[in-house]
Amino acid sequence: MRHGCTLRGDPDAVVERVATLSAAAAGTLSFLANPQYRSQLQATRATAVVLAAGDAEACPAACLISSNPYLTYARIAAELHPEPPLAPGVSSRAVVAATASIGAGSQVESGAVIGDGADIGERCYVGANAVIGRDCRVGADTRLMPLVVLYPGVRVGARCLLHAGAVIGADGFGIARGEGGRWTKVPQVGSVVVGDDVEIGANTTIDRGAIGDTIIGDGAKLDNQIQIGHNVVIGCHTAIAGLVGIAGSTKVGARCILGGDATVSGHLEIVDDVVVSGGATVTNSITRPGLYGGPLPASEMRSWRRNAVRFGQLDELARRLQRLEQIVGQKGKADT
Amino acid sequence: MRHGCTLRGDPDAVVERVATLSAAAAGTLSFLANPQYRSQLQATRATAVVLAAGDAEACPAACLISSNPYLTYARIAAELHPEPPLAPGVSSRAVVAATASIGAGSQVESGAVIGDGADIGERCYVGANAVIGRDCRVGADTRLMPLVVLYPGVRVGARCLLHAGAVIGADGFGIARGEGGRWTKVPQVGSVVVGDDVEIGANTTIDRGAIGDTIIGDGAKLDNQIQIGHNVVIGCHTAIAGLVGIAGSTKVGARCILGGDATVSGHLEIVDDVVVSGGATVTNSITRPGLYGGPLPASEMRSWRRNAVRFGQLDELARRLQRLEQIVGQKGKADT
Amino acid sequence: MRHGCTLRGDPDAVVERVATLSAAAAGTLSFLANPQYRSQLQATRATAVVLAAGDAEACPAACLISSNPYLTYARIAAELHPEPPLAPGVSSRAVVAATASIGAGSQVESGAVIGDGADIGERCYVGANAVIGRDCRVGADTRLMPLVVLYPGVRVGARCLLHAGAVIGADGFGIARGEGGRWTKVPQVGSVVVGDDVEIGANTTIDRGAIGDTIIGDGAKLDNQIQIGHNVVIGCHTAIAGLVGIAGSTKVGARCILGGDATVSGHLEIVDDVVVSGGATVTNSITRPGLYGGPLPASEMRSWRRNAVRFGQLDELARRLQRLEQIVGQKGKADT
Repeated sequence: MRHGCTLRGDPDAVVERVATLSAAAAGTLSFLANPQYRSQLQATRATAVVLAAGDAEACPAACLISSNPYLTYARIAAELHPEPPLAPGVSSRAVVAATASIGAGSQVESGAVIGDGADIGERCYVGANAVIGRDCRVGADTRLMPLVVLYPGVRVGARCLLHAGAVIGADGFGIARGEGGRWTKVPQVGSVVVGDDVEIGANTTIDRGAIGDTIIGDGAKLDNQIQIGHNVVIGCHTAIAGLVGIAGSTKVGARCILGGDATVSGHLEIVDDVVVSGGATVTNSITRPGLYGGPLPASEMRSWRRNAVRFGQLDELARRLQRLEQIVGQKGKADT
Repeated sequence: MRHGCTLRGDPDAVVERVATLSAAAAGTLSFLANPQYRSQLQATRATAVVLAAGDAEACPAACLISSNPYLTYARIAAELHPEPPLAPGVSSRAVVAATASIGAGSQVESGAVIGDGADIGERCYVGANAVIGRDCRVGADTRLMPLVVLYPGVRVGARCLLHAGAVIGADGFGIARGEGGRWTKVPQVGSVVVGDDVEIGANTTIDRGAIGDTIIGDGAKLDNQIQIGHNVVIGCHTAIAGLVGIAGSTKVGARCILGGDATVSGHLEIVDDVVVSGGATVTNSITRPGLYGGPLPASEMRSWRRNAVRFGQLDELARRLQRLEQIVGQKGKADT
Repeated sequence: MRHGCTLRGDPDAVVERVATLSAAAAGTLSFLANPQYRSQLQATRATAVVLAAGDAEACPAACLISSNPYLTYARIAAELHPEPPLAPGVSSRAVVAATASIGAGSQVESGAVIGDGADIGERCYVGANAVIGRDCRVGADTRLMPLVVLYPGVRVGARCLLHAGAVIGADGFGIARGEGGRWTKVPQVGSVVVGDDVEIGANTTIDRGAIGDTIIGDGAKLDNQIQIGHNVVIGCHTAIAGLVGIAGSTKVGARCILGGDATVSGHLEIVDDVVVSGGATVTNSITRPGLYGGPLPASEMRSWRRNAVRFGQLDELARRLQRLEQIVGQKGKADT
C-alpha cells in the first residue's frame, strides 16, 4: 500500500476529506497521533483512521496502520486537499521592472511590485501587494503570499512558502555608541539566504547580515511573528515556533526545535538536535543535544506571589541553611 | 442623566474634547479611574471630570459621578470624538473581482485587492492596500485598516475593527516529522471565524484551523502583535494584551484577561473568568476562575544573579534542608 | 587622521569593502570590538583592522587604532557602503492626494498611498505600497520602507528610517469593562510623535495616545517586532531590542537599553541610563540607573524540572528553614 501503511478493514472505503475524530462524518479520513485524543477514537464516525498498530483494536472504522500516523496523515491529506492550481500570468495591476525576469508558469497578483534585476523562478506565486526588491532571486515553485517583503538582494530557494507580512532582509540592529550615548548606525551590507523547502510564517522578520549573510537552512520551518537577527544561521530541518527571538550572530544547529516565545541571546552556538521549551531564555551556548527547560510555569496568584518573594531572598536562605549545617555539625557543602 | 451618572456642579458646563487631568484646559472632559492619578485631581483645569462618588469632594470642577467612571468616560468620549464618516465608493485604484460583492455605503481605498466571491457587508471600510482573499465574508460596519490580510475563506463578523498589518487565516504551524528529521507540511484546511464586535490589533496573526476553524468569540479584544495558533478558541469578551502567544488547539474561556507577553501552551483548556499576569507561561489547563501569576520580576543585576545561581541549586538546597530536619529531630516532611 | 583614530602600518593601503575578521580578503576593512572574536585576529587576511590599542600588537594587518573601534568602524563602513541615491519623483502607480505635499528630491514608489494634507519633507523615500494617512508630517531625509503604515496625524522627524511593516499610530488598547464583562472601546484621540534620527524596525508597532501623544525621543533606536503602547514616552538615545513590549503610559528615560523580549508593565517610570536584560519583566518603576536582571536562564530539562518543582515549594522551604533555626537556637531572622 502507498504511504507505507497497512490497511485493516474495507479496502473499498472512499474518503473525500479530512476531519477530526470527534467531528468526523462518513466519507472522512481522520487520524490519531496525540494520545490526549485517544478517548475520542471509539465514538468516531470517520470512514477511515490513520493510527498506530496499538490503537487499531479500539477503532470502529477502517484503519490505516502506520509507524508514524501523523506523517502518513499529512501525506494523504495533501492528496485530498491539493493547493489550488496557479493561474499563470502577471496582473496588469502588478508593477514589474523591465529588467526583472518572471519564470514560466508563474502568477503575479495585483499590486505586487518587483524591482530591477529580480529573478523569479518557474511556477512561483507572488501575492497581492507583495514587494520584491531589486536583484532578489526566488527559486522555482516558491509561493510569496500577499504583502511579503523581500529587501534588495535577498535569495529564497525552491518550494518555499512565505506567509503574509513576512519581511526578509531589513537591516539588522547594528548600532555603535558614541559620546553622550548617541548611536551611529552600522551599515548592514550582508543579505539573507533562505534555502529550499523553507516555510516562514506570517509577520516573521529575518534581518540581513551586517557583514556576510543571515542563513536559513534547507527544510527549516518558521512559525509566525519570529524575529531572526543579523548573521544568524539556522540549521537544516530546524523548526521554530511563534514569537521566538534569536539575537545576532547565533548559530542554531540542524534538526533543533525551539518552542514558542523562546529567546536565544546573541553570539551563541546551539548544536544539532537540541529541543528548547517554549518560553525558555537561552543565554549560553548549548554543546550537547537534548531537552532544555524553562521558564517557571504560571500558578495561582497567591502562591505565586509568596514564592516570588522568597526567590528574592534565595541567596540569603541558602546562606542561612549553610550556617545551620555548620552549627548542627554537617560537613559543610562549601558551594558559596 | 444619560450614561447613568449623576452631575454635581454647573449643569450648563460645555465640554468639547477630552484631556488628562494634568493637561486639561477649559472646555475639556477628564476622568479619574486609576487611583495612581488621584493626586492630579485637585489641580486639574478640566471643566468636568468623570469620577467615583468618593472622589467628588476633592474635585474642583463639575463632577459626573459614576459607579464605573472609565466606562462612562469611554461613552462620552465616543460622542465627543466620533469616527470620521465613510466616503462610500470603491477607489478606481482598488482591484475588486467581478464576482465579489460590496455592500451599500462601504468604502474601498486605493490599492485594496478583493478576491473572487468575497462578500463585504454594508458600511464597511477596506483600507489602502488591504488584501481580502476569495470567498471571505465581512459583516456590516466592520473596518479593515490598511494592509490587513484576510486569507481565502475567512469570516469576520459585524462591527469589528482590524488594525493595519493584521493577518487572519495564514496556515497553522502543522508539520509532521519523518526520516532524518525532515518535516512534511500538514495541510491546513480549516478557516478562521471572527465573531461580532471584535477588535484585532496591528500586526496580530490568527492562523486558520488545521481541520475545523479557529474561532474568536463575540466581543473579544486583541491587542497588537498577538499570535493565535490553529484551532484555538477564544471565548466571548476575552481581552488579550500585546505580544501574547496561544499555541494550537487551546480553548480560552469567556471574559478572561491575558496580560501582555503571556504565553499559553497548546491543547489546554482555560475556564471562563481567568486572569493571567503579563509575561506568565501557562503550561497546564486552568480549571478554576481566578488570578494566575508569573513570571519573576526583574531586579538589580547583582541580587538577580546571586538568586538565579541559587535557583540552579534549589533541589539540592531542599534536600539539604530535609537532611538537617532529620538530624535535628524534626518530623521529616517527606516531600522528596 | 579622520575618525579620530591612529594608523599603524601602510598609510597607502586601500580598502574597498568591509569583512569579518575570519572571512576577510585583501582590500577589505575589518574590526575587533567584541573580545569573543579576538582569537580570529592573528589569522585575518584583512588589509586593515579597526581595533583598540591593546590589540594592535597581535594584528597582522594595518591597524586603525581607536578608543571606540565599533563606532570608528561604523563611520568608515558608512563611507565605503553609502545608501544608494534616491531617484526623485512620484511613481505613476503611487496614489498621492491632491492636497498632500511632497518635498523636493523625494522619491515615492509604486503603490504608495499618501492621504489628504500629508506633508512629506525633502529628500524623503516612500517605499512601495506604504500607506501615509491624512495630515501626517514626515521630516526631511526620512526613509519609509515598503508597507510602512502611518495612521492619520502621525508626525515623524528628520533623518528617520522606518522598516517594512512598521505600523505607527494604530489605536491603543483602551477598553472599559461593563456589565457581563462586555468591553466598550475608549476612543484613542492622541497621536504619535517620532523625533529626529530615529530608527524603527520591521513590523514594530507604536500605538497612538489615548489622550495626548505617544512620544519617541530623538535618536532612539527600535529593533523589529516591538510593541509600544499608548502614551508611552521613550527618552532620547534609548535603544530597544526586538520583541520588547512596553505597556501604556510608561515613561522610559534617556540612554536606556532594553534587551530583546523584555517586557515593561504600564504606568511605570524608568529613569535615564537603565539597562534591562533580555527577557526581563519589569513590573515596578526603576528609580536608579544601573543594570537590571531577569529571567532565569534555560538549563537541561531534568535539572530544570527538579528546580522548578522546588520553586513551587519555596515559601514552605523558607518556613521550614526558619523553624529549624529556632530549634537550633539561631537568632530568628524574622523576615516572614
